[in-house]
Amino acid sequence: MSTQRRVVIVGGGFGGLAAAKRLRPVPVQVTLLDRRNYHLFQPLLYQVATGVLSPANIASPLRGILRHQRNCQVLMNEVVDFDLVGRKVLVREGDPISYDWLIVAGGATHGYFGRDEWAQYAPGLKTIEDATEIRKRILFAFEAAEQELDPNRRRAWLTFVIVGGGPTGVEMAGALSDIAHYTLRHDFRNIRSSEARIVLVEASQYPLDMYGGDLPARSLDALYKLHVEVRTLTKVVDIQDHHVVLESAGQRATLETETVVWAAGVKASPLAAKLANACGLTTDRAGRIPVGSDLTIAGHAEVMVIGDMASCSNEGKPLPGLAPVAMQQGQYCAQRIEAHLAGRSTQQFQYRDRGSMAVIGRYRAVAQIGKRRFFGLLAWAMWLVIHILEITQFRNRLLVLVQWGWTFFTRDRAARLITGQTEPRVVSARSDGDSRSPGTP
Amino acid sequence: MSTQRRVVIVGGGFGGLAAAKRLRPVPVQVTLLDRRNYHLFQPLLYQVATGVLSPANIASPLRGILRHQRNCQVLMNEVVDFDLVGRKVLVREGDPISYDWLIVAGGATHGYFGRDEWAQYAPGLKTIEDATEIRKRILFAFEAAEQELDPNRRRAWLTFVIVGGGPTGVEMAGALSDIAHYTLRHDFRNIRSSEARIVLVEASQYPLDMYGGDLPARSLDALYKLHVEVRTLTKVVDIQDHHVVLESAGQRATLETETVVWAAGVKASPLAAKLANACGLTTDRAGRIPVGSDLTIAGHAEVMVIGDMASCSNEGKPLPGLAPVAMQQGQYCAQRIEAHLAGRSTQQFQYRDRGSMAVIGRYRAVAQIGKRRFFGLLAWAMWLVIHILEITQFRNRLLVLVQWGWTFFTRDRAARLITGQTEPRVVSARSDGDSRSPGTP
Repeated sequence: MSTQRRVVIVGGGFGGLAAAKRLRPVPVQVTLLDRRNYHLFQPLLYQVATGVLSPANIASPLRGILRHQRNCQVLMNEVVDFDLVGRKVLVREGDPISYDWLIVAGGATHGYFGRDEWAQYAPGLKTIEDATEIRKRILFAFEAAEQELDPNRRRAWLTFVIVGGGPTGVEMAGALSDIAHYTLRHDFRNIRSSEARIVLVEASQYPLDMYGGDLPARSLDALYKLHVEVRTLTKVVDIQDHHVVLESAGQRATLETETVVWAAGVKASPLAAKLANACGLTTDRAGRIPVGSDLTIAGHAEVMVIGDMASCSNEGKPLPGLAPVAMQQGQYCAQRIEAHLAGRSTQQFQYRDRGSMAVIGRYRAVAQIGKRRFFGLLAWAMWLVIHILEITQFRNRLLVLVQWGWTFFTRDRAARLITGQTEPRVVSARSDGDSRSPGTP
Repeated sequence: MSTQRRVVIVGGGFGGLAAAKRLRPVPVQVTLLDRRNYHLFQPLLYQVATGVLSPANIASPLRGILRHQRNCQVLMNEVVDFDLVGRKVLVREGDPISYDWLIVAGGATHGYFGRDEWAQYAPGLKTIEDATEIRKRILFAFEAAEQELDPNRRRAWLTFVIVGGGPTGVEMAGALSDIAHYTLRHDFRNIRSSEARIVLVEASQYPLDMYGGDLPARSLDALYKLHVEVRTLTKVVDIQDHHVVLESAGQRATLETETVVWAAGVKASPLAAKLANACGLTTDRAGRIPVGSDLTIAGHAEVMVIGDMASCSNEGKPLPGLAPVAMQQGQYCAQRIEAHLAGRSTQQFQYRDRGSMAVIGRYRAVAQIGKRRFFGLLAWAMWLVIHILEITQFRNRLLVLVQWGWTFFTRDRAARLITGQTEPRVVSARSDGDSRSPGTP
């Protein structure tokens, strides 16, 4: 029917979607493959996990976004392998899909440094299901504590451990502090929610240590003010059903807890290993594929890898796993294809660092934009404005604004639902209704 | 610590919550038990199943609602049995809970007329998990059809069967028609979403036959205009993985479909059978417990059963399973306890019928208020106003308004996410990307 070349894009995250959109004016047939039917705005996932937003506020159906782009087809399917010689992508359902160009943007998942058995006790925060699972665990911990008579067990239910002091860990810790000290403060009769301990474990000297200047030190101070126990220079050496083992300066200590959130390592999608295998490359420690300065893999000028799956350096510095990196890479891939069709050559990929930012509770954030650093209220306001603008749909912008306003003024987090399979973990005993306050058993 | 009497309420639905709130000024200690941590506004559940609203928009944390009612404690726990002699409720976690008065408001679940094996193929719509499951099935059916090459299988994916022509069935059918004809009309490349068949199966002569006058006949007409195939005087005699068997006038016919929604029978919570067993009563066909005119069960003036679990007659007529019935019953129970404490006697329960209504797609609804009947735009406007007012929190009212406005003007349903365990059912083959239109293979 048409002799147009085919571009197959694997993954509808920031990178894949940017590539698909940038291909709109290009005379190619685009097929976007994703296991999910939506694009997820991951930077706000922690707000789903902490009851401010609903999943649909930060997820937009891919078909909806691309519905008027006639040269693009969306298929909900799972890529299982690559046939680089035959130029085909193998999918879980149906026949392989041929391509002339392939853009692989499969993203990343949590990495447990080889301790995959920790996953069941310490879920990470990458998908909507992760977020509702973490929300369930956090809220259920307070419910269980309310019904627990044994003071040690109650303390374990009220101890929340967050592993990793990067942006996600810090944002989770700040939100948990708000939940314990404000949102739930009138909700219980047997416990005081403010007794909750929020422990943030970070291996390096400061949380947010990827930021420069005094931002890490000021972040640490801000977290202390939010009653977060920050354990720096501390490593998690074991995670079990009812405790974690921390190591600091050679000393090990066991911390009893029922709720652990993993915000430490990420590793590239398992697709990266399959792709590496298909072309004889090896992945790096984070499971990523090395790509050249044009984002192609060695020996295959028609295969580009972008985002969290790619190990890519720019001016000698490795690029971080951030949405802007993936988006710029996606656009670059589309431009490269456009240039090729027009017989032009393309320059190498150049990342323009527009900065990065993280929130630390209400009113406070850190931001680094170029060489300039911001801390506090101004950074927080910048964060708000930029995130509202970046959300994909107008409807969702409006809904997020309403919910942020609501949560800001009332400190309520109304989306605090315990949904999904409810398999209550064992509570050793239950108060039968007397309004005993915690200090007076 | 206090010699106040204890009221235990089982279930935080419309009935249980109304009882708890009405007990606020009464000098008793209230314990509200629910397996869930939220009150669910079930009348709008079909809007979650069809991608307009998010679960959190129609679910409010029970603790949040009752946080300032100091005489009320909320416990998230599951009632497993009753000890009526010892006046105790047995719960899944921890010790039994003693009561002086017991209000049982456990609600209802789907009833499959003894064919429980149909549940896996034809989920009903009672919980948030049900709604997101049905949403997933509906959306996935279109996704699978887009990738299906076999025209018979594609037709099965695009056939949606709704069993039961009551309000839920009619509301689901109307919403599905909107999804097929408007929401998704530009979303696919290989199928036309408007080819979808929406089949509404109803055993009696008309859908919405509980309404009087010409409302059922006009509803039937309205559904035809929405391209819904209404099969009246038709029964479902079997449901299997890939088809349903319908029977009409003694004739059986098999209809191939991948998506069946159950909106036919309900039966009382299994707690009703346990309670009946504990006091030597028998439940009716719908699993409900017979209660007296004061809502107590025979021989136990301290045990009241309300809402969908109670078989209750008023002026000789059985009361329907509606939210206003449960709410009035809950308030009555609280007033009865208040009167008892004050040494006053109570009159028997009297249901004040304020009417009922159901939506049939955009712009049309039916409403019966007293003896007056409304159809069309006016009924639809009444439905909108009343449902907005009835939603529990101000924040949710605002969010629902924004989303209704959005969906009304754009016909978009932005919450159309396929979430939860994704186990794609087998698609026999997949189009590999050519933009073939359905009529021209």
